[in-house]
Amino acid sequence: MSTTGFTGAGLDRADHLRLDAEQLAALMANGEARLLRLAELDPVLDEEGRLAWGALAEAEGDMLFLGLDEGVPLFAPLVRTEALGRRAWSVFRLLSLMSQRDAAIWGAARSLNEWHNRHLFCSVCGTAAVVFRAGWGRKCPNCGAEHFPRVDPVVIMLAEHEGRVLLGRQPQYPAGRYSALAGFVEPGESIEEAVARELMEEAGIAVRDVRYVTSQPWPFPGQLMIACIASAESDALRLDANELEDAFWASRDEVRAALAGDPAAPFQAPPPFAIANTLLTRWSADASEE
Amino acid sequence: MSTTGFTGAGLDRADHLRLDAEQLAALMANGEARLLRLAELDPVLDEEGRLAWGALAEAEGDMLFLGLDEGVPLFAPLVRTEALGRRAWSVFRLLSLMSQRDAAIWGAARSLNEWHNRHLFCSVCGTAAVVFRAGWGRKCPNCGAEHFPRVDPVVIMLAEHEGRVLLGRQPQYPAGRYSALAGFVEPGESIEEAVARELMEEAGIAVRDVRYVTSQPWPFPGQLMIACIASAESDALRLDANELEDAFWASRDEVRAALAGDPAAPFQAPPPFAIANTLLTRWSADASEE
Repeated sequence: MSTTGFTGAGLDRADHLRLDAEQLAALMANGEARLLRLAELDPVLDEEGRLAWGALAEAEGDMLFLGLDEGVPLFAPLVRTEALGRRAWSVFRLLSLMSQRDAAIWGAARSLNEWHNRHLFCSVCGTAAVVFRAGWGRKCPNCGAEHFPRVDPVVIMLAEHEGRVLLGRQPQYPAGRYSALAGFVEPGESIEEAVARELMEEAGIAVRDVRYVTSQPWPFPGQLMIACIASAESDALRLDANELEDAFWASRDEVRAALAGDPAAPFQAPPPFAIANTLLTRWSADASEE
Repeated sequence: MSTTGFTGAGLDRADHLRLDAEQLAALMANGEARLLRLAELDPVLDEEGRLAWGALAEAEGDMLFLGLDEGVPLFAPLVRTEALGRRAWSVFRLLSLMSQRDAAIWGAARSLNEWHNRHLFCSVCGTAAVVFRAGWGRKCPNCGAEHFPRVDPVVIMLAEHEGRVLLGRQPQYPAGRYSALAGFVEPGESIEEAVARELMEEAGIAVRDVRYVTSQPWPFPGQLMIACIASAESDALRLDANELEDAFWASRDEVRAALAGDPAAPFQAPPPFAIANTLLTRWSADASEE
């Protein structure tokens, strides 16, 4: 249905089974059930470069039910780790080798694991909470509060001005990398308002006419990336030095060169599994405003 | 910029001031600073039907910095309450009397308060966490973890089939009410995938070509509502009785009648501040597919 990164797992998440202890036990007893292999939270690939799976009998501890793959139950282990929240650039090389479907399956397992590791305790009363809903929640044995995996909506956007788009660079990016500006949606604002606020905060750019483009999940640790394009009133920049170390307006030709990996391009594009790549690809292919 | 509910507050959220203790103290010492009046978490209206504000000197306890209104600092109290998570139908009558801007300002204050009340303790280690970032976060004095207000993305959508759209009814709705189907976006899926999954889970409807329409926040307690339209492959329904007590396909004329409050309409439309109303209004005005 979609060609953005970390989508297309194609599993039946079978939500109706998650709370059904009897059916869940049957899934785990199913001889074909498979357990995702993880190295800490990172993917493990087999000799053909595909996600490696083991038998469910190998499992110890809590299990996360990822869904049904044409009837075959897929699980991931709940991994206790201190290696949280790191973007883990080393994983990016693995991701570039993986099929999109494998990346999507692994991404869900990683996001769930990141969430569990940061939500061991009930935020309402401070008691240690236990896994429920086959890994899609935690419940407090003291106050009864139910907690569900967190997904943080993030807007990522191109401000457009006279055939060029605004790209920025954060200090932690690899050398030469520029990307679309981004920021978390806050309580009490729409996607369109968050796009306008972030562009004003980070670059001093006022925009009108925010257009949604596409979306994808991002498992570092659990964002919903919402890609938009907006029309800038002016190209005069006022950068927030805490957010961006540099920014510039890129033309379609410059963006196309970067996406093609041309060494003469003025910047290095984000990888294909990042929605900024999809957003730049869509924009650079669309000459409707030229 | 947008005409959806709970948007258009028009405040400068001034994120750069939230962590600046000196500037924040100056904002609070500003004689023009105003404090939102709340009854528990509900809005308090003055004689003209506008949000009621008091002087900041009235305040006790933690304060939430809502933003600057043409330079005037606006705050809301952090209200400790047990009255959480209730949709509070009684508030809906008040909301129907309020300006859109007032609803947006109150909505942000309500969402922040809901979040604080459910996040008194650090979910990483179980220690009581303290307010920081002028109310836009909590920090753990034990492990140092920082926690930010949660915004839950929810897809709400119309499946469309031969000029009609699918509307459903949850048991807790007011008599006669039908609305668009909706559900939380989960880790590891895009907006488009969540739309397809929810329509399949709740109504057995397979869709293609998911189109984004618009978005708004929803402060009960803190969702980001993402409205879409998708093309249904068939109109044969298989309802999940746990989610919906009824559903039917409504024509444009039926939707227009309901939005106009026609007593002969086959259902009662959601209120104007709900994005389902906006979505139905946009769809029923768009005859491009007729």
